[in-house]
Amino acid sequence: MGWRVAIVGAGAVGGYYGGLLARGGIETHFLLRSDYDVIRQRGLVVRSPAGDFHLPPPRLHLHRDASAMPPVDLVLLATKATANHHLPALLAPLMRDDAVVLCLQNGLGGVETLAETFGVERVLAGLSFICSNRLEPGVITHLGFGLIRFGPAGDACRVDPRDLHATLRAAGWDIELSDDIHRDRWAKLAWNIPFNGLGAVMNLSVDRLIGPPAARALVEDVMGEVIATAEALGHRFPDDLVDQQIAKTARMGAYRTSMQLDRLAGRPMERDAIVDRPLQVARRHGVSVPRIEMLSQQLAAIG
Amino acid sequence: MGWRVAIVGAGAVGGYYGGLLARGGIETHFLLRSDYDVIRQRGLVVRSPAGDFHLPPPRLHLHRDASAMPPVDLVLLATKATANHHLPALLAPLMRDDAVVLCLQNGLGGVETLAETFGVERVLAGLSFICSNRLEPGVITHLGFGLIRFGPAGDACRVDPRDLHATLRAAGWDIELSDDIHRDRWAKLAWNIPFNGLGAVMNLSVDRLIGPPAARALVEDVMGEVIATAEALGHRFPDDLVDQQIAKTARMGAYRTSMQLDRLAGRPMERDAIVDRPLQVARRHGVSVPRIEMLSQQLAAIG
Repeated sequence: MGWRVAIVGAGAVGGYYGGLLARGGIETHFLLRSDYDVIRQRGLVVRSPAGDFHLPPPRLHLHRDASAMPPVDLVLLATKATANHHLPALLAPLMRDDAVVLCLQNGLGGVETLAETFGVERVLAGLSFICSNRLEPGVITHLGFGLIRFGPAGDACRVDPRDLHATLRAAGWDIELSDDIHRDRWAKLAWNIPFNGLGAVMNLSVDRLIGPPAARALVEDVMGEVIATAEALGHRFPDDLVDQQIAKTARMGAYRTSMQLDRLAGRPMERDAIVDRPLQVARRHGVSVPRIEMLSQQLAAIG
Repeated sequence: MGWRVAIVGAGAVGGYYGGLLARGGIETHFLLRSDYDVIRQRGLVVRSPAGDFHLPPPRLHLHRDASAMPPVDLVLLATKATANHHLPALLAPLMRDDAVVLCLQNGLGGVETLAETFGVERVLAGLSFICSNRLEPGVITHLGFGLIRFGPAGDACRVDPRDLHATLRAAGWDIELSDDIHRDRWAKLAWNIPFNGLGAVMNLSVDRLIGPPAARALVEDVMGEVIATAEALGHRFPDDLVDQQIAKTARMGAYRTSMQLDRLAGRPMERDAIVDRPLQVARRHGVSVPRIEMLSQQLAAIG
């Protein structure tokens, strides 16, 4: 096939999935900013229950400047969603010719910005179901899970998603093609809004959000507001979606979400993508979401 | 006058005000539980910008058992409101003869329980406007303020509140008599619910709740819900109550409320008295208080 891939952002998600591609024989170019110097010196380390691996610098294509990168077939966007106003300028040099972009960001906003900028037929949305952290530059700790579910953002797509699926799967990703990625994005928001939002505001790891009955009731109430919003958009979910989400969370242990870690470290949180944009959708559709309203205020207060 | 006073609870409030009475020449009997041994050995220390003082053990009347205490004229109740189901049994031995009780607890519940148990004419409600902490047994750190506002809980009162006012004032308290203590209790709830509640849930000191505009907006929204509830009960407040509360808070610096300190120390929080009972009042009167609802859930989740 000879796919050439650009990874934008080598954090917990981009470092893990980009590392798998590079290890799997795909020509993988990393566009780095703050982690460039460290990864150039020490390479990329992935610690994983599926087996640790280390990609030394000679096996990595590292870049600091997108305009100096070779043409690629696929851009994998895995930056945090906290600076998405820079996306058009950041990705323009990489989106030459027929390149498509797979957006792995959390929440709403990234996919939409990319579609407006480059055309919806060149955008795919992906959801990563992974517990991983980047606790220091170039060192990714994969704690568990790892599935990517993806699909084209619009009705037409510049590539055949089945080809992309086969290629990425062959390179080592646990990946599946969705029949409705936007429904799946809302199902993931139903997890992200309570666990990232409440986890950051209340400084609780996910086990402490589902353990005490009062905490779990709060999580379920917030989740219900997200589901009601998605249903107002026409999406439909299994009746037991809430129970599924709780059961999945119970297998995560004392996991701290990215937003909780960001608050603790004083970094910007992805509250616009994860909470505020979904809230705006709820308001536009007249859905009553009092808990998400309060969560948004609380995140703004600590952010 | 020869008043004899029993102080129940020698924490941040009871230790400070009881200490002032003992220093001021009132026969003051302390009923202690966990702090008994330490205070019996070292006495009571009050550190205050108005002047530190130390009451050595010989100057203190210390008790572990209410039934062994002499008859008193006034019981000052300054325990935390987290175990109020014990109040009737705890205070019965002290409420002999004509004794009255001044309840300095936060929130709702203490005054009501005392009135049901001993008769409303024997109960006075007091509000302490003080920043103080008990960081170790027998050592009270008074950070600022110190006013007590009080008044009878019912229309009739076993004592003349003006006599009580004069006595306590002569002993060194900064105290004033309210013309409507229940209205004043709700005005204080308008402070306590946002600052104690949000402070504990979000782990923020009061300066960080009024500094960032988004945080202040949240505080003001919660305060507005408390005021709406009190107004549904028939209380009326100055138009600038919210601004007054914010201005007063701005003079407190990086003060951590008792509920935030309790959360950090893993102690029970006064969430029933400060948040849940006012919430029940709002519900009974059909007042929409979505933020207090969420706050109650969040406190239950961390409590």
